[in-house]
Amino acid sequence: MTIKTTAIVSRKASIGSNVSIGDFTIIFDNVVIGDNVSIQSHCLIGQPTTLSEGQPLVIGNNSLIRSHSIFYEGSQFGSQLMTGHRVTAREKIEAGENFLIGTHCDLQGHSIIGDYVRLYTGVQINHKSSIGDFVRIYQYSILTNDPHPPSNLELGVRINKYAVIAAMCCILPGVKIGEKALIGACSLVKSDVEPETVVAGVPAKYICRTSEIKLKDGTNQPAYPWMRHFHRGYPKEITDEWMSTYGT
Amino acid sequence: MTIKTTAIVSRKASIGSNVSIGDFTIIFDNVVIGDNVSIQSHCLIGQPTTLSEGQPLVIGNNSLIRSHSIFYEGSQFGSQLMTGHRVTAREKIEAGENFLIGTHCDLQGHSIIGDYVRLYTGVQINHKSSIGDFVRIYQYSILTNDPHPPSNLELGVRINKYAVIAAMCCILPGVKIGEKALIGACSLVKSDVEPETVVAGVPAKYICRTSEIKLKDGTNQPAYPWMRHFHRGYPKEITDEWMSTYGT
Amino acid sequence: MTIKTTAIVSRKASIGSNVSIGDFTIIFDNVVIGDNVSIQSHCLIGQPTTLSEGQPLVIGNNSLIRSHSIFYEGSQFGSQLMTGHRVTAREKIEAGENFLIGTHCDLQGHSIIGDYVRLYTGVQINHKSSIGDFVRIYQYSILTNDPHPPSNLELGVRINKYAVIAAMCCILPGVKIGEKALIGACSLVKSDVEPETVVAGVPAKYICRTSEIKLKDGTNQPAYPWMRHFHRGYPKEITDEWMSTYGT
Repeated sequence: MTIKTTAIVSRKASIGSNVSIGDFTIIFDNVVIGDNVSIQSHCLIGQPTTLSEGQPLVIGNNSLIRSHSIFYEGSQFGSQLMTGHRVTAREKIEAGENFLIGTHCDLQGHSIIGDYVRLYTGVQINHKSSIGDFVRIYQYSILTNDPHPPSNLELGVRINKYAVIAAMCCILPGVKIGEKALIGACSLVKSDVEPETVVAGVPAKYICRTSEIKLKDGTNQPAYPWMRHFHRGYPKEITDEWMSTYGT
Repeated sequence: MTIKTTAIVSRKASIGSNVSIGDFTIIFDNVVIGDNVSIQSHCLIGQPTTLSEGQPLVIGNNSLIRSHSIFYEGSQFGSQLMTGHRVTAREKIEAGENFLIGTHCDLQGHSIIGDYVRLYTGVQINHKSSIGDFVRIYQYSILTNDPHPPSNLELGVRINKYAVIAAMCCILPGVKIGEKALIGACSLVKSDVEPETVVAGVPAKYICRTSEIKLKDGTNQPAYPWMRHFHRGYPKEITDEWMSTYGT
Repeated sequence: MTIKTTAIVSRKASIGSNVSIGDFTIIFDNVVIGDNVSIQSHCLIGQPTTLSEGQPLVIGNNSLIRSHSIFYEGSQFGSQLMTGHRVTAREKIEAGENFLIGTHCDLQGHSIIGDYVRLYTGVQINHKSSIGDFVRIYQYSILTNDPHPPSNLELGVRINKYAVIAAMCCILPGVKIGEKALIGACSLVKSDVEPETVVAGVPAKYICRTSEIKLKDGTNQPAYPWMRHFHRGYPKEITDEWMSTYGT
């Protein structure tokens, strides 16, 4: 365990073996940190909130939390969480394994997130969002939840497995995005999106089937399902399965 | 008064009773903090700038400034200011009571802000903006001011009372948004918006009267004016008045 | 040299004369800081990464890095770098002189940036971007690089000299933007833009020649090329040259 001398670590926190904690980071009481976790400098880990209802913050094994990030108590993250800098994650998030959260992402809490989800810079996720395994959401896209701002309803967005949301999209409350769908950049998505279809625009409209899009790398192979050709950051057991399912 | 031992607090700063100051926070000289104020960790409060022309930063009573936020000297905020994390507020802001500033908001200063204004995550406000009482602005929306970037003109945006700007809108320089208007998500607003109307799109166009929008909560009641049905976070004396004016 | 007592400064770092380093800032080993540089509080300077291939972080003379910013090792910045707060700059950036980076900008690295480039709040720049001298990019605009997210291709964006990208634009992978072009706010730019033309919309379409746009300051003079009338923040030797080339 390597705890920098300027870090402030509660004795009540449960901290696994081989954990490193950076300078000027604060670890609060109600925290369970797994083994082989690295937390960089200037972070708040387990920020108290009554909304946690006493539940701890749980960080799984082999995780990396980059500097200036803030995690509230009351959420749990599976193993191999990896964040960018200045991430905010509030209470009541249940996230699976290998969750990647980009710099400046803002997770407002009360959401369910599957395994191997990737969020790029500045993604903003509101209450009652539900995100399936292997979903990827790009820069500054947001999942909203209030159909008539401001109102008392919270209609969460549901994004199904393997769907991809390109940069700067706004997904409106209650929208369901089907498996392996692709949302083009700068889209305003007002209604449900069928699996394996491409939508784009303000408001988003049907463009084509995902299978109609070809790679620009000279192969002219289909770009989707992306699991055929994109394997960076996924373990071999998963990519082997993808190749047997989608490979040529 | 609870000042963490790692906080750095100028003796010249004026600090009220029952104030708490978090770890690794710096309070500069030219600061007036009211009573019952809580400032979390890793903040800069009263960052010096010559543009303040010697004016102090004033934070009203009963305020909460969350971690990693930066307030410059030369601005003043009424009582019950509440911020998210990593807010930036520069000089020459005059804000009323009960101002709520979401995580990552960037206020460039030289703006006037009414009472009970709410900004959500990442709202960006430029010089000469003027925001009326009870206005609500959602995620990543911005108020611009330069009609021909870059130019020497600053034409501020004016948003009148009770107007709502949904997520990811860009309001162009000099635009006036009327009372109780609603700007739909992802809109580019190039011209003035009439009171109690809905506009949306890129560029934004007239959609309907706000009164034509119905709640999706099963009641089929009008969603606007929102003061009829949305009271969360407002004091009873205000919501009672709303009910006598707008209630059924 | 003024190094605050709470700053943590590696003895291996090379630090010029008349450098100030703020509280709670960490200077890592592999760093070369020029003369007359001011680094504010809560920063990370020279964050280690294997992707730097051993190259240092180089910060030119007369620079100002504002608080809570993070610079990785392996990038170099010319003199008079000036940042807002909470900037992130990763490895393998080669930036010229007088680079201005706004609050919350996220530079993912592996990019080339000319002299006198200005980025406003929240601009997000991905790998293989190339930005010419005097380019200006406004709030929340992003330069993407993946033509079929996720794929293994990185097609960088190229923005030529003096071009202006207004707020909330998304420039798609591989797009080239011509010299002195203007991209209107909230545009999705899918194809190359000719020099001295204006495009706007989702997707962006040709609007007019830049020369057809007139200032709204009462003079009715052309607003572009902007170097005719906008000189703030540029040295006299440059603005004199602009006046002899573009002035009336």
